[in-house]
Amino acid sequence: MRGYTKDKDDYLKRLRRIEGQVRGIQRMVDEDVYCIDILTQISAVNKALHSVAIGLLDEHVRHCVANAASADNPEGADDMVHEATDAIARLLRS
Amino acid sequence: MRGYTKDKDDYLKRLRRIEGQVRGIQRMVDEDVYCIDILTQISAVNKALHSVAIGLLDEHVRHCVANAASADNPEGADDMVHEATDAIARLLRS
Amino acid sequence: MRGYTKDKDDYLKRLRRIEGQVRGIQRMVDEDVYCIDILTQISAVNKALHSVAIGLLDEHVRHCVANAASADNPEGADDMVHEATDAIARLLRS
Amino acid sequence: MRGYTKDKDDYLKRLRRIEGQVRGIQRMVDEDVYCIDILTQISAVNKALHSVAIGLLDEHVRHCVANAASADNPEGADDMVHEATDAIARLLRS
Repeated sequence: MRGYTKDKDDYLKRLRRIEGQVRGIQRMVDEDVYCIDILTQISAVNKALHSVAIGLLDEHVRHCVANAASADNPEGADDMVHEATDAIARLLRS
Repeated sequence: MRGYTKDKDDYLKRLRRIEGQVRGIQRMVDEDVYCIDILTQISAVNKALHSVAIGLLDEHVRHCVANAASADNPEGADDMVHEATDAIARLLRS
Repeated sequence: MRGYTKDKDDYLKRLRRIEGQVRGIQRMVDEDVYCIDILTQISAVNKALHSVAIGLLDEHVRHCVANAASADNPEGADDMVHEATDAIARLLRS
Repeated sequence: MRGYTKDKDDYLKRLRRIEGQVRGIQRMVDEDVYCIDILTQISAVNKALHSVAIGLLDEHVRHCVANAASADNPEGADDMVHEATDAIARLLRS
């Protein structure tokens, strides 16, 4: 079982909203809306995606901790932490 | 006329691709795909959006310069530069 | 003459403050301060550096526009715009 | 004991290097170096700071996991995870 399942509906709702925002940006480009307003909208989408990413990360790390606490696989938890920090590094560069 | 009209089709194609990527992320969440893979995909979308933003900015500023060169509205060009740097600041915080 | 000379003293003051903040982070690491507090301080330095970068960009682009308005070198202004957007792309990835 | 103590010397060396880079940026501003080159240097400092931050985060989370595995304080570990994801969110906005 994955760690983020609990809030699945919430994530899906937020991602559908983001999808709608991306469609809105297409419309703005198509209708020659002033480019600075489009940039503002792109910033809003990035922010919303980062917020989803932070939520997923939080659950992932909480999951590692729970795994480690159940004590049957501490090494696996360590690998999961490494994967998480690699993912954060990619987010920071994106 | 807006500065980014020339490459409109290219922007629309990239934004439709980004929309498809966001739908892909929804599918990943829905199918309980491993969260680190979802984070990687979110980083890819952010990168693609930043690339669209940089393209729009480039055209906007080029437009300011062309405006200024035509010399009938140098103050207006200055305001447009301010708007652009404010937009960059928002992008950096997003 | 460079575009940012006018506010040189202000930039130097801010950069000296940033240098002091980086020294503060060294002290925090040396004294085993709680790592989350160090991360908060690193975020503050990044923010301060971005703010300096935005200021320099604003002056650079304003300079391009002034150059273009003086009309003796519109192609040079175009190259300067390209350099600026490349620099923004690097900032976004940093 | 803090989690990052083990690599303290490495962090201190990197932070002193960053401090030197910030001093280099001051010199560049003082000597009216071309602003785009200064922006490139600012991007390099941000990248170096992010890399230090990622290292500290990795150790922090590994520490949470070890804490949880030792089982005497699972709730404390959970709080530490929250603090870590809050810190990541701040980094992403910085």
